Amino acid sequence: MRISELSAASGVPIPTIKFYLREGLLAPGVKAGQTQAEYSEAHVRRLRLIRTLLEAGRMRVRDVRTVLRALDDDEVGFHDLLGTAHHALGGSATAPGTPEERDALAEVDRFVSRLGWNVSDEAPARHTLARALFTLREFGYPADVRVFEPYARVADRLAAREISTISGRGPRADAVEAAVVGTVVFEAALVALRRLAQEHHSARRFGGRRRR
Amino acid sequence: MRISELSAASGVPIPTIKFYLREGLLAPGVKAGQTQAEYSEAHVRRLRLIRTLLEAGRMRVRDVRTVLRALDDDEVGFHDLLGTAHHALGGSATAPGTPEERDALAEVDRFVSRLGWNVSDEAPARHTLARALFTLREFGYPADVRVFEPYARVADRLAAREISTISGRGPRADAVEAAVVGTVVFEAALVALRRLAQEHHSARRFGGRRRR
Repeated sequence: MRISELSAASGVPIPTIKFYLREGLLAPGVKAGQTQAEYSEAHVRRLRLIRTLLEAGRMRVRDVRTVLRALDDDEVGFHDLLGTAHHALGGSATAPGTPEERDALAEVDRFVSRLGWNVSDEAPARHTLARALFTLREFGYPADVRVFEPYARVADRLAAREISTISGRGPRADAVEAAVVGTVVFEAALVALRRLAQEHHSARRFGGRRRR
Repeated sequence: MRISELSAASGVPIPTIKFYLREGLLAPGVKAGQTQAEYSEAHVRRLRLIRTLLEAGRMRVRDVRTVLRALDDDEVGFHDLLGTAHHALGGSATAPGTPEERDALAEVDRFVSRLGWNVSDEAPARHTLARALFTLREFGYPADVRVFEPYARVADRLAAREISTISGRGPRADAVEAAVVGTVVFEAALVALRRLAQEHHSARRFGGRRRR
């Protein structure tokens, strides 16, 4: 298909497609004449993935590029790919500055070990969790890292389920794409559901119509 | 305290404090001479809240302003404030365009009713969830809205717990601040914990050291 058809099939405007081509997110089409190129269903699918990573995953363009490169590299195993996606999804991966921040990170690490979780020292989510703990303390809540225990139990159950559904079904590209999409899409869904549930329980407890 | 001391106490650089003052996020200090102003502990606390909403909540400046206004308005009840915070936290609140998007939203609404949740028609999280469902389908997964059931159950339990811990303890400003901080900080923590748990279960299942 031509670029105009690719745009129609994917819902992505032509200038945006050209931007993705320039940025190396999308492989060039097959040359069909001087100024035209032919695109395929693979391009439609890849555009969908790019949009999902940018929108649902709120990734930066350069992080999308990193994830797509890992996805396209047959040498990168599933576990590494997941790590790459997590990195790209970000979090405050900056090293802790103050002693209080270092303390929070050390507590998070002990907490994670007690849970029996085997995670990389470079996992940005460790820093995100330490930052959350540190923020609670900054606000004067007597926050022990164990406040996260109910969340950790829930996360453990969901993740066990999610990882167990990833199988060798179909070609590698599909499996890894499914894993990345699943990580991003179900994360957005979980956050949305928690907000809806909060609204429901808040309405029950504090009642009253909502003002805007 | 002077602005330099406020900066030291809060860790926020002076130009950033001045920006927040100009943007109306931070109340002016009490005049102390021609060019100086006196700030208080309340300013330190407010700066912390602004940073938390911007960083952990990834809110835009204008959304932070909306939340702070609601927080400072004694007429706004807790339930409304939570709604305001959820709105500011965002999500794709755009109206569904295609029939497929409308279908996804209608299914989400039925799903939410079946859960017995009472949520506003304007809740942006409804759209986020519909978008997640729609994205799964775009990728060709035979996604029924019930794929979200385990997530909804978990969200319901966590939210019930969270809302039940909000009490009338202390002054209103503290309670509402606690609610907003709790929403934002525990959301970040939950997302981080799910990623860590995924990494752990992925390591167990797919093994192998992580490459970078």
